[in-house]
Amino acid sequence: MSTPPVTAVESEAMLRALRLAGQGVRGANPLVGAVVLGADGAVLGEGYHRGAGTPHAEPAALADARSRGNDPRGATVVVTLEPCNHTGRTGPCSEALIEAGIARVVYAADDVNGAAAGGAHRLRGAGIDCVGGLEAARSRDLNDRWTAALAGIRPFVTLKSAQSLDGRVAARDGSSQWITGPEARADGHRIRALADAVLVGTGTVLADNPRLTARTDGAQDSQVARGGPRLRVVLGQGTVPDDAAIRGPGFLHLATRDVHLALGELYGRGVRHLMVEGGPRVASAFLRAGVVDELFSYVAPLILGDGAAAFPELGVTTLGEAERWRLDSAGGPAVQQLGADVRVHLRPPPSSPGRTSPTPA
Amino acid sequence: MSTPPVTAVESEAMLRALRLAGQGVRGANPLVGAVVLGADGAVLGEGYHRGAGTPHAEPAALADARSRGNDPRGATVVVTLEPCNHTGRTGPCSEALIEAGIARVVYAADDVNGAAAGGAHRLRGAGIDCVGGLEAARSRDLNDRWTAALAGIRPFVTLKSAQSLDGRVAARDGSSQWITGPEARADGHRIRALADAVLVGTGTVLADNPRLTARTDGAQDSQVARGGPRLRVVLGQGTVPDDAAIRGPGFLHLATRDVHLALGELYGRGVRHLMVEGGPRVASAFLRAGVVDELFSYVAPLILGDGAAAFPELGVTTLGEAERWRLDSAGGPAVQQLGADVRVHLRPPPSSPGRTSPTPA
Repeated sequence: MSTPPVTAVESEAMLRALRLAGQGVRGANPLVGAVVLGADGAVLGEGYHRGAGTPHAEPAALADARSRGNDPRGATVVVTLEPCNHTGRTGPCSEALIEAGIARVVYAADDVNGAAAGGAHRLRGAGIDCVGGLEAARSRDLNDRWTAALAGIRPFVTLKSAQSLDGRVAARDGSSQWITGPEARADGHRIRALADAVLVGTGTVLADNPRLTARTDGAQDSQVARGGPRLRVVLGQGTVPDDAAIRGPGFLHLATRDVHLALGELYGRGVRHLMVEGGPRVASAFLRAGVVDELFSYVAPLILGDGAAAFPELGVTTLGEAERWRLDSAGGPAVQQLGADVRVHLRPPPSSPGRTSPTPA
Repeated sequence: MSTPPVTAVESEAMLRALRLAGQGVRGANPLVGAVVLGADGAVLGEGYHRGAGTPHAEPAALADARSRGNDPRGATVVVTLEPCNHTGRTGPCSEALIEAGIARVVYAADDVNGAAAGGAHRLRGAGIDCVGGLEAARSRDLNDRWTAALAGIRPFVTLKSAQSLDGRVAARDGSSQWITGPEARADGHRIRALADAVLVGTGTVLADNPRLTARTDGAQDSQVARGGPRLRVVLGQGTVPDDAAIRGPGFLHLATRDVHLALGELYGRGVRHLMVEGGPRVASAFLRAGVVDELFSYVAPLILGDGAAAFPELGVTTLGEAERWRLDSAGGPAVQQLGADVRVHLRPPPSSPGRTSPTPA
């Protein structure tokens, strides 16, 4: 691919937009960042997508410019994804850019989401100078698994695990509250709140009786403030007691052990981002099915020596068969200290035999 | 304790010296940092102890000053530990300071090592203004376990472990080479090289036949260049084959399962810093005995699901019984990405029932 005709300042701004995109949390949308540049090359505003129900990166960057007292008329917007042409929870970004009087748009990757694509065409029709393809590979790298999951007609799947240093989710007697400390648990709540749906197995319902809502104390984000995921899903053929805390509006019991069936059903109900929170049998089932797109592993500096393993029943017999995941710095540091604990953010190997939606290398 | 009479510049320099100390690696000496201040408060030089056989912090800082063309005569030396008065592998630091014409010494903690203590007395006798106690608690925090171990007449014990994310040191069929990548293994070699002795169990000898020397490629440090620990120890009542790679000068077989007995024997042979490298049974025995002073856990982003556990047989039955270790940032970041892997550096709980040399809280 030839290098698109952009200025050095625009190239710089794209690197900044990519870093901004990486600060986001995957909600029901890809990770996107944007920078507004004045005619003299000065940064007028910047923004990124913070999760479902919040503004896309372009309106966030325009709002930031205005809040700084900068008029975006005649400015250039540098953004990591083709502006959308689709009215979802927010209006189309292409219209917002036209209304703001933007003169030029430089974007990285094309939007391959059928419903949202066509933004560049719309912008050009409105007389806006529009250049695509700058750092497209890096933008796709942020969102490839997202794109692949949705192309596979299944939600993007985040797996969360909280374990001791030696990979145990409970002591020998089953005690597990709490392995990690308050900072790690709050971080897990924050990520849960941005998903469309959260899922556990029947075993976890019986053992822990979780509510699986999200903490809303002081939440700045609209979806968090709404109370978190709209669906709370129990997977498995066991019984969910009538008085289980998880019941109520948004409760769904999928009485199957088939992960693919469950994902299809959830996709059909509009779920685009699923957070899987255990227990170990459910975690292993999703790993075996090859449908985990990212893993947040919260590791407490406890040594248990014994007790329930985080990921039993994977069927790995020799080292060469094991999947070598990769540290993932999209959406925050790959390795992070949270209070007394450590959070490790991982992405799966680029192509592994069991993956239903292999991502480009 | 009243605040010692020091200047603001000296207080600043002490914080810098503490940070320098934390960059060291515990060899056979405590962690110490030093800063040389000119009469006008300018930093003339700085240094820290880099491990056994290398200069102490004060001579390192004086040498740094001279290499920058700064004459240390009349200067103030700010150092995190009372200068030693003991001729070991290097001459006494008190003499080096006197010979350099230093006018004033500000130190943090008293040296409680019988053989090395008395430095402040010697300095004052030579007419040097000498103030102790500045940030003493922070200096002791760097070295408390070191001091306690030696007061308990046993070596300081570093435990190293290399495991998958889910706490396995081998897959189900026993394959374990290599769980971690080259960067993590090189880091482990670097730490091993600075210990007096390295120890494994007979099981590890039979399974892996390790040499347990240290890589010397491009090593800057004299002890590393010498080829690492002077003792390579096998613990256990099993047989060490005649053709085992670990045999040769410096090889020692301690045919016992008693950790305390082994530590006493090694202390008697002059070992002050022991690196324990496994396997899992030996690691668990040292943990159960409460004699592990620090743990370097190298975690590879592999998910094995099954296979040998890193720390079996600890006897923990419920969560409340488990030792909650603490992330340790002395000697480098507590949590660090090394190539594709993660290194977590941990210190034990301040007081735990099984610990033979409980450290001050």
